[in-house]
Amino acid sequence: MLGNCIDNVRAAAPLVHNITNYVTVNDVANILLACGGSPIMSDEPDDVEDITSICGGLCINIGTLNQQSMEGMFRAGKKANELGHILLLDPVGAGASTLRTDTAVRLAEELRFDAIRGNISEIRTLAQGSGTTRGVDADLADAVTEENLEEAVAFVKNFAKKDGCIAAVTGAIDLVGDQSTCYVIRNGRPEMAKITGTGCQLSAVMTAFLVANPQEKLKAAAAAVCAMGLAGELAWKRMQEGDGNAAYRNRIIDAVYNMDGNELEKGANYEVR
Amino acid sequence: MLGNCIDNVRAAAPLVHNITNYVTVNDVANILLACGGSPIMSDEPDDVEDITSICGGLCINIGTLNQQSMEGMFRAGKKANELGHILLLDPVGAGASTLRTDTAVRLAEELRFDAIRGNISEIRTLAQGSGTTRGVDADLADAVTEENLEEAVAFVKNFAKKDGCIAAVTGAIDLVGDQSTCYVIRNGRPEMAKITGTGCQLSAVMTAFLVANPQEKLKAAAAAVCAMGLAGELAWKRMQEGDGNAAYRNRIIDAVYNMDGNELEKGANYEVR
Amino acid sequence: MLGNCIDNVRAAAPLVHNITNYVTVNDVANILLACGGSPIMSDEPDDVEDITSICGGLCINIGTLNQQSMEGMFRAGKKANELGHILLLDPVGAGASTLRTDTAVRLAEELRFDAIRGNISEIRTLAQGSGTTRGVDADLADAVTEENLEEAVAFVKNFAKKDGCIAAVTGAIDLVGDQSTCYVIRNGRPEMAKITGTGCQLSAVMTAFLVANPQEKLKAAAAAVCAMGLAGELAWKRMQEGDGNAAYRNRIIDAVYNMDGNELEKGANYEVR
Repeated sequence: MLGNCIDNVRAAAPLVHNITNYVTVNDVANILLACGGSPIMSDEPDDVEDITSICGGLCINIGTLNQQSMEGMFRAGKKANELGHILLLDPVGAGASTLRTDTAVRLAEELRFDAIRGNISEIRTLAQGSGTTRGVDADLADAVTEENLEEAVAFVKNFAKKDGCIAAVTGAIDLVGDQSTCYVIRNGRPEMAKITGTGCQLSAVMTAFLVANPQEKLKAAAAAVCAMGLAGELAWKRMQEGDGNAAYRNRIIDAVYNMDGNELEKGANYEVR
Repeated sequence: MLGNCIDNVRAAAPLVHNITNYVTVNDVANILLACGGSPIMSDEPDDVEDITSICGGLCINIGTLNQQSMEGMFRAGKKANELGHILLLDPVGAGASTLRTDTAVRLAEELRFDAIRGNISEIRTLAQGSGTTRGVDADLADAVTEENLEEAVAFVKNFAKKDGCIAAVTGAIDLVGDQSTCYVIRNGRPEMAKITGTGCQLSAVMTAFLVANPQEKLKAAAAAVCAMGLAGELAWKRMQEGDGNAAYRNRIIDAVYNMDGNELEKGANYEVR
Repeated sequence: MLGNCIDNVRAAAPLVHNITNYVTVNDVANILLACGGSPIMSDEPDDVEDITSICGGLCINIGTLNQQSMEGMFRAGKKANELGHILLLDPVGAGASTLRTDTAVRLAEELRFDAIRGNISEIRTLAQGSGTTRGVDADLADAVTEENLEEAVAFVKNFAKKDGCIAAVTGAIDLVGDQSTCYVIRNGRPEMAKITGTGCQLSAVMTAFLVANPQEKLKAAAAAVCAMGLAGELAWKRMQEGDGNAAYRNRIIDAVYNMDGNELEKGANYEVR
């Protein structure tokens, strides 16, 4: 019964503050609108506390971090924690550089996140304080597969327990868990990796889902992952001859725009472990 | 007779300098090209004076302001004023944070703007020096409706008189006025609010219209608002099953690309008060 | 025989580091994915050395330079040179401002570039240390035409010789040369100039082509230009009634996504001088 989570987003229209990268920010804004949320972006340290105060949640994405936005992340994050707002971390490229790894680790230490979402390499980096991320994509050796699923589920639960948050590891198979329960999700299509920013988009959507479903955060986080993957499946069915990753990008956002609770309920493909 | 305003843009191909946010900047650039203008973006303080000098107009949008771009806004704005260039302000999120409110108020005080365009909450904030903007969207209590239209028109004329500029308040009903005349415009569709940046796009398009129609600025500003709203209507007619806000975003830009003076003249839906 | 160059990109999946402008960065990322590469963006000085170290090439684009990203460009460029990585410069707007001209000239002096790609005004500015660029578009008086082609080819070879790099001058006719050989390319469509960032996209794609074809850099650079122009032709054939520059933008990226070596081989329209 994940379907109602998206209906709750449309009913609540949560305002989500994003401190995010300039690569995928437009798609992040449009997919937040598509799912029923309302985006606002601000990274200037002198602006972020006011902005986050009027929002329901804050999504911190370190995809193109700089000294100014890093200060903004910490100031906004602390304010969000003070106010009891939803706080999510997307540690883009953690493991790919010392600055990204250190910043992600520091953010995870100094702030209380409701959820942390990344690929397996990024989350492993956070768990270990180091990593071998291949740029912003997951290291292939780290991929979650049917073969190592048991181990990966245990890793997710353990990470969630240690960090006291929901851990969402997305890839070919998505895992969304807290310390005791893990959703194993098989929505989505491999072609989504050929679009920049599907991960960033999911993080923002997940923040909106968490804000609008505060009593069932784990379910809401899993529903966001299902919704994004299902949008990828529905969008693929609408692809026409000659379409490529640009058309696919648009069609995925459109699929979220047109998705309701019934469609999500029927299309969500998951098991709970 | 607003139609010729867009033909003049295509004939003049005005170069428009944008100091704008990183969320919607790509759409701003593409819609400027679509309407016949030519965009250039620069916010580095040491770059902006040169850049604005070769342009016909400058559009300042505070959507993701930071200390560096704020300095760029003032330096570029002063240069544009010196050179007698068109200068437009889009006070995105004024009222949502102290920094945004203060910056918008200071810009309006220290620079001479040809036009200021925002939603009603943002313009009220500028008028009052404070506000209750709901993020970057208008506060619902502030919406211009058929019921409070008389009062809203008076507000727009008064604001325009006090600030010595064209005031453009956009929403379900758009108002574009100077101290004595106000265009009441009923183009557009509510679904445009589900796309990020239609306001930012309009501000840039309006700047191009002002540059290309220097003898009839109020008419040009109104024509830009009609053109954007009409594009929203035409684009909506081209929507196909499964399309959502991403497709709509593209179709609106495309509708501007294909619009000529005749189409604008026939489609513009306004009265003058 | 340029066709295999794109196949090599798909086989190698080169990671390309981009320090680029925030206007067209999303399209740059998506077209890199479309051609078979993998993008990563980073401009923070304390991040760029690590990031460029894990990549195969670095594309420096000064479209919205600022003091921070400028420092990032020099630090990343030096590291790329140290590591023998592919390094490309796109001097966007050189000639339009002192800061852009000086930065482009300094980058060309202090770093060893494998290729420099710009419009004729930008490349002339680099050659002369000054210019009359019309914003980010080429000065019309500078356009490469059938009439001045001989002279333009000589200019390109001379520039390439002096700078010790591949020079790519793109416009209605594209020229890609080293000191002794120049590809004269007649792919593309004039409507591509109505989309923001086709030049930025080409620079990133060219970087990926160079990384994946290290033994034949000139051919690879020419193949990238042919691929981009051919994509513009193929995309134009897919345009439908009502489509404009937004649809065209998406269709061009999609055409690259669907292009293979055979299609490129057959569609490439060039002569060697």
